[in-house]
Amino acid sequence: MTAKTSTKQNTRALLLETGIDIMIEKGYHATGLSDVLSACGVPKGSFYHYFESKEDFGLQVINTFDEKYVAQLDQVLSDPKLSPLNRLKKYIDDAIAKAESRQCSRGCLIANLSQEMADQNEVFRLRLKQIITKRRESFARVIKEAQEDGEIAKDLDANELAEFFLSAFEGAIMRAKVQKDIQPFRAFKKMFFDKLCRHSQESRSK
Amino acid sequence: MTAKTSTKQNTRALLLETGIDIMIEKGYHATGLSDVLSACGVPKGSFYHYFESKEDFGLQVINTFDEKYVAQLDQVLSDPKLSPLNRLKKYIDDAIAKAESRQCSRGCLIANLSQEMADQNEVFRLRLKQIITKRRESFARVIKEAQEDGEIAKDLDANELAEFFLSAFEGAIMRAKVQKDIQPFRAFKKMFFDKLCRHSQESRSK
Repeated sequence: MTAKTSTKQNTRALLLETGIDIMIEKGYHATGLSDVLSACGVPKGSFYHYFESKEDFGLQVINTFDEKYVAQLDQVLSDPKLSPLNRLKKYIDDAIAKAESRQCSRGCLIANLSQEMADQNEVFRLRLKQIITKRRESFARVIKEAQEDGEIAKDLDANELAEFFLSAFEGAIMRAKVQKDIQPFRAFKKMFFDKLCRHSQESRSK
Repeated sequence: MTAKTSTKQNTRALLLETGIDIMIEKGYHATGLSDVLSACGVPKGSFYHYFESKEDFGLQVINTFDEKYVAQLDQVLSDPKLSPLNRLKKYIDDAIAKAESRQCSRGCLIANLSQEMADQNEVFRLRLKQIITKRRESFARVIKEAQEDGEIAKDLDANELAEFFLSAFEGAIMRAKVQKDIQPFRAFKKMFFDKLCRHSQESRSK
């Protein structure tokens, strides 16, 4: 790799990281490319040196965010020190701690863009669908493990429970963002883990 | 009321209805005032004759949408022909039927704008928070009625269950919008009504 190629790649990575920061707050449409370039100290007009279009940039922002997210998610969901159910709980606790540290602002980039772009751009919708489907599959795998370990009853369909887990938590993130309060997270934890999963454990022991 | 005042009010109402239709699909930022005016056949440039600013228009769009929504919601949630739990189920079934008829597009205006605006505009956030809090209170009232009638156990906190109901359903609407499939709604109904509420009924009978 030449020094020039390396610099180009570093600048591209910086633009993508900055894109994540701005887009998670403002969304896709309200993110101005000139704001991203200014924040990085990259000359205006050189954007197309790095990306084909704003759409290309947006999709690369999503991919960059997702790569990091999946790495963290996989680490928590395969932690050998925790039982499968406790891995799910840790995932939620980590996310709540992160939300609290940001006064419940920002939310989840994938959910924010899903809400904004699903009816606006089919390329974005399909990419976002693919990402969320993969997450749902990861949650379903851990739920199945928890079922095998007797932590969650086998009478609950793991895929449906994973879908519900995802919907309810994404909804709670959005609610917390509007309320600026973690109460929706508390309700989620109590109802999902203490009531819904406890029920399953009771059913199983019958 | 003079004919002129009446025409002005009709035009204003038409602009707001059109604003709902466009804003529910595109969001606030991507909605161009000129598109709204063109769709209504109202001359460009006359916008400020009806509204103080785009923000004022957006807030009036939210209020107009909410007034209609609350009227429908109140009707379902106070239907004397249905038990309290069945009123909640009917609310969900009606919403799913509506989503299906639109191929799961659009979603909920209040949730869409919450996602987009909560960190962008404090006036919007506070108005959206107020609207959702009122909905949560309506759901909590029906949940309490269901608890009094023995349909939902008294050991569940009605306000927390209402919050969870709201989060999980708003999340399912968003998921369905990305998937273009009602599967997230099916998972919601099964887990919330068949599993979580059933658990409560079992707990109560102990």
